[in-house]
Amino acid sequence: MTPKPPSRGISRRVLLASAAALAIAPGLALPTSRPAQAQADPLPSWNEGAAKQAILTFVDRVTRQGGPDFVPPPERIATFDNDGTLWCEHPVPVQLVFALDRVKALAPQHPEWKNTQPFRAVLEGDMKALAESGERGLVELVMTTHAGMTTEEFAKIVTDWLATARDPRFKRPYTELVYQPMLELLAYLRANGFKTFVVSGGGIEFMRPWTERVYGIPPEQVVGSSIKTKFEMRRDRPILFRLPELNFNDDKAGKPVAINEHIGRRPIAAFGNSDGDLQMLQWTTMAGGVRFGLIVHHTDADREYAYERNGAFGNLDQALAAAAANQWTVVDMKRDWKVVFPFERR
Amino acid sequence: MTPKPPSRGISRRVLLASAAALAIAPGLALPTSRPAQAQADPLPSWNEGAAKQAILTFVDRVTRQGGPDFVPPPERIATFDNDGTLWCEHPVPVQLVFALDRVKALAPQHPEWKNTQPFRAVLEGDMKALAESGERGLVELVMTTHAGMTTEEFAKIVTDWLATARDPRFKRPYTELVYQPMLELLAYLRANGFKTFVVSGGGIEFMRPWTERVYGIPPEQVVGSSIKTKFEMRRDRPILFRLPELNFNDDKAGKPVAINEHIGRRPIAAFGNSDGDLQMLQWTTMAGGVRFGLIVHHTDADREYAYERNGAFGNLDQALAAAAANQWTVVDMKRDWKVVFPFERR
Repeated sequence: MTPKPPSRGISRRVLLASAAALAIAPGLALPTSRPAQAQADPLPSWNEGAAKQAILTFVDRVTRQGGPDFVPPPERIATFDNDGTLWCEHPVPVQLVFALDRVKALAPQHPEWKNTQPFRAVLEGDMKALAESGERGLVELVMTTHAGMTTEEFAKIVTDWLATARDPRFKRPYTELVYQPMLELLAYLRANGFKTFVVSGGGIEFMRPWTERVYGIPPEQVVGSSIKTKFEMRRDRPILFRLPELNFNDDKAGKPVAINEHIGRRPIAAFGNSDGDLQMLQWTTMAGGVRFGLIVHHTDADREYAYERNGAFGNLDQALAAAAANQWTVVDMKRDWKVVFPFERR
Repeated sequence: MTPKPPSRGISRRVLLASAAALAIAPGLALPTSRPAQAQADPLPSWNEGAAKQAILTFVDRVTRQGGPDFVPPPERIATFDNDGTLWCEHPVPVQLVFALDRVKALAPQHPEWKNTQPFRAVLEGDMKALAESGERGLVELVMTTHAGMTTEEFAKIVTDWLATARDPRFKRPYTELVYQPMLELLAYLRANGFKTFVVSGGGIEFMRPWTERVYGIPPEQVVGSSIKTKFEMRRDRPILFRLPELNFNDDKAGKPVAINEHIGRRPIAAFGNSDGDLQMLQWTTMAGGVRFGLIVHHTDADREYAYERNGAFGNLDQALAAAAANQWTVVDMKRDWKVVFPFERR
């Protein structure tokens, strides 16, 4: 069961700041990049227009051997926000749905939760009371559901949950609510020598178990928020135990810091959808040379969602103003995307 | 000028714990892996013997399609300690030589250092006084020389220093004091589908400016100790400023934690030379399946150095005992390596 959306009083930022996860990914086969095809459209789900043209022009310039803007392949780093940029984050961020479902699954072992907030609110579906528990309540919720097990155990919990959880509107697994045009963009960049990374405020371990299968992005190219882990020998086996303590909040000004720590190179292209991505796009594009920044603008209430300008999912005005000032490309989902989700094509 | 070795009172561990560095690497061309050759010896600088045979057997088992021990290429992760495993750390760890040289270079701007420890000790070459300044003195030395500039400025400082600094015994740049047999091993593993990572107690930014050129390991595959950085806009340009505050100590039990955080997969092969690498080798090899652990034993005072069993460079007894207990391969440098450094072949 997925819960009803909580009120807007629950900030995505608070969730992402505390929801952090490191996990060993299971042995998924790495999808190979499509070879660049001579004439075929590499972005078939994109309508012709300024956004698509800007992408094609950028890739052409940085990959043209001997051209003035050529960038050697090892430096072709592209970073992608996840929530709202690669997959749907509305009406409730997926990782929060996961946390709420985990509380329900664990409740039989915790009879005291019936009388303890914020757990009681979750169990009674009282989203108003949950919102009233504030940041402190959310952090407790996240730490209770994301810590207290080994990294391998957590990866299995995430994988098992994703196998059965369904989005209430689309009745599909959350990993099918990814944006088809962005999947094509990832493959197109890789076919042109780019290395693609996820750089998300979401938990690094919540993403790693499935990013390789869904995005073709292996665990070592996933950057996210994290909690601390501790190395221990347990019955002669080494484990990493997940502690209820924030390690890093990979949002806003944290994104360039994490990009530097994990990748050690400045990206030449970055993709986001909110003010949480501003600093990543600034770091990427305000550096001289041909650079590319893109903001996904959620404008399609019929096929996905049309965001309020400044709501629970960030300060959109600020993101759009920065895009205009820095000549970042803005994708208007309704206008620029032929399809939103892969299942629309079937 | 490189300094004389300090007394053993200066622990490598203390240095590595505090010497941390994050940097943007310059645009070096990525050396490509050699293709596996049908008959040629992939490890020509290794003498025939148990160590070489153990490496060849392991690679054969995990790469044999359809075999019981086959590991898909995305999971072929190999991690290498740096100091004493890939390059020479004797008689003074290179990063400490760098810190001491930086103090001398910066001294004209700091007249007060003539009367302040530990700087006075460095400027007067009084290694006894430096050792007496203890861990606190060393941390101050490292933070003074590694923080207080942007990540790009630090990368340039490291690159410029490496271009002129010379090891006092071999009269060569430190980046030439890398082990030829290990370079061959890195290339051999990559030719067999492995992704090679450095996982070092040394500063991540101290290594990234040169690992691609020297080891063929790009910045995003370098893991190390780090100090904190802060994102700022400075004159309309985004920068990352290096703060005099430890972020992560990538040594001992920190190595598996950092491997999980950066790579998100458990390695199937790990290479080290001291008790600082024990937990990394445990995490790698005590996990079921065919796994490979290797300890480089420094036994060659003529061509390199013969380490004391338990000296400034770690607890060697503990490392060798763990190798015996876990069936890790031990390289006896004197016996197993035909040459130690690349320049011996010229």
